[in-house]
Amino acid sequence: MGRHVVDLKPRWADMDAYGHVNNVTWLEYLQEARVDMFHAYTSDPGEGLLVEGVVVSRAVIDYKRPLVFRPDPVRIEMWVSRAGVASFTIDYEVLDRADDGSRIVYVLAQTVLVPVTLEDGRPRRLRPQERKVLEGLGDD
Amino acid sequence: MGRHVVDLKPRWADMDAYGHVNNVTWLEYLQEARVDMFHAYTSDPGEGLLVEGVVVSRAVIDYKRPLVFRPDPVRIEMWVSRAGVASFTIDYEVLDRADDGSRIVYVLAQTVLVPVTLEDGRPRRLRPQERKVLEGLGDD
Amino acid sequence: MGRHVVDLKPRWADMDAYGHVNNVTWLEYLQEARVDMFHAYTSDPGEGLLVEGVVVSRAVIDYKRPLVFRPDPVRIEMWVSRAGVASFTIDYEVLDRADDGSRIVYVLAQTVLVPVTLEDGRPRRLRPQERKVLEGLGDD
Amino acid sequence: MGRHVVDLKPRWADMDAYGHVNNVTWLEYLQEARVDMFHAYTSDPGEGLLVEGVVVSRAVIDYKRPLVFRPDPVRIEMWVSRAGVASFTIDYEVLDRADDGSRIVYVLAQTVLVPVTLEDGRPRRLRPQERKVLEGLGDD
Repeated sequence: MGRHVVDLKPRWADMDAYGHVNNVTWLEYLQEARVDMFHAYTSDPGEGLLVEGVVVSRAVIDYKRPLVFRPDPVRIEMWVSRAGVASFTIDYEVLDRADDGSRIVYVLAQTVLVPVTLEDGRPRRLRPQERKVLEGLGDD
Repeated sequence: MGRHVVDLKPRWADMDAYGHVNNVTWLEYLQEARVDMFHAYTSDPGEGLLVEGVVVSRAVIDYKRPLVFRPDPVRIEMWVSRAGVASFTIDYEVLDRADDGSRIVYVLAQTVLVPVTLEDGRPRRLRPQERKVLEGLGDD
Repeated sequence: MGRHVVDLKPRWADMDAYGHVNNVTWLEYLQEARVDMFHAYTSDPGEGLLVEGVVVSRAVIDYKRPLVFRPDPVRIEMWVSRAGVASFTIDYEVLDRADDGSRIVYVLAQTVLVPVTLEDGRPRRLRPQERKVLEGLGDD
Repeated sequence: MGRHVVDLKPRWADMDAYGHVNNVTWLEYLQEARVDMFHAYTSDPGEGLLVEGVVVSRAVIDYKRPLVFRPDPVRIEMWVSRAGVASFTIDYEVLDRADDGSRIVYVLAQTVLVPVTLEDGRPRRLRPQERKVLEGLGDD
């Protein structure tokens, strides 16, 4: 299905004392985008991927450009770049589209995610159905 | 001089709906540790490294273990692992020391930092004095 | 003109360890709503009300009902309940509208705001034009 | 016993785009102070006051003076000003002590707190033992 797109509205409170969206806050944006994606592709909570059942094991963020608060949302494009046996990887681009169609990129990022059991939070393997959903979320 | 150590007190508000310090918040902990380190090693604000004059260009975080809120501080050990021409790298270990002296590691991380001019925020080269301070902060 | 309405999207990160939007976060919601309102009614930044030029001198919040995260926005209705010489008051209701039209209220609040000079942050009197804008924002 | 005192270390991240501790963040400081107080006076978690079992029903904050980030803690003095049948009130003063012993007050605040059952979060009456603890925390 290709990239999942989330339009996220910055909050004034996201700015730090420099007047920019703080480097920490970008990681919160990625978290919100994941919640959105998991809600979108998890029709059956008993079977599929659950926000509640995934923990972040690694995050890598490249900060390309500062963002000053404005009321308009930023665009988060995300896709599953790897679906392993017991973990998967999501890649992100956070950007604006300029009037001429060009892309103004603020952040490139990658998170490794591990499904865990709901009972005790232990890592578990991806279920076949989950893997199928994830493979459909690649960047075609 | 070796590792710089910061004891950071968790806040109850750092926990998310899972009851753990949120993955985003750990990046805030690293930021607070940097502020502490820059304050400690910048005696002359006109000459040396300034918190105000450094931006994060890359962050890598490995989450090793969840942390539940408790009143006691966690220990952040940090050191300069690279001092380049126009950027430098700080490595971090966030941990508790158990009673038997063993280390319980929550997070390993690395941030690439770029000094910028105070006037217009443009990247600049490290000054000789700054490089000297940074080289003294390696992990001996 | 009556009430100003802001639809604010909760973030997953707004929840605390109880799984509710934290009592602190509601105050952030009010702040975001003010930023929205000031942007909406300040066409001329050189003359009118500025987000940058108003500080909160008092906040009163009544928590009526907990809110669990959901992707849908909550509705913030706000109006100017008092325009004094050197301060003014905004009242807020944060709520959902149920399908039958009834209101489910989460928070009632009030903030007293003081305009300050941009140069040195000192309190100042409301300008006639500002007062006019504020008086038009009452709850008819 | 009189006032309970908490020394809370500001974080750099507490500052907003004005370079001050944000008006929202002060409410977080009060929350952290409550957690500290409840931990201090709840020796037996099965019997006494529980952080987990108290919700905020009303908060009133007067902002007296802005605070710029500094590494040193601010002092929060708090006491129980009212212990009712099914709710109680805590008053707060957030301040620095100047070298000459005078007080520099940043925030005065009051929160009304309601004990709830752990099972379903419903309001309940204060237990006799809880009331006794609370009455000992008045401002002598």
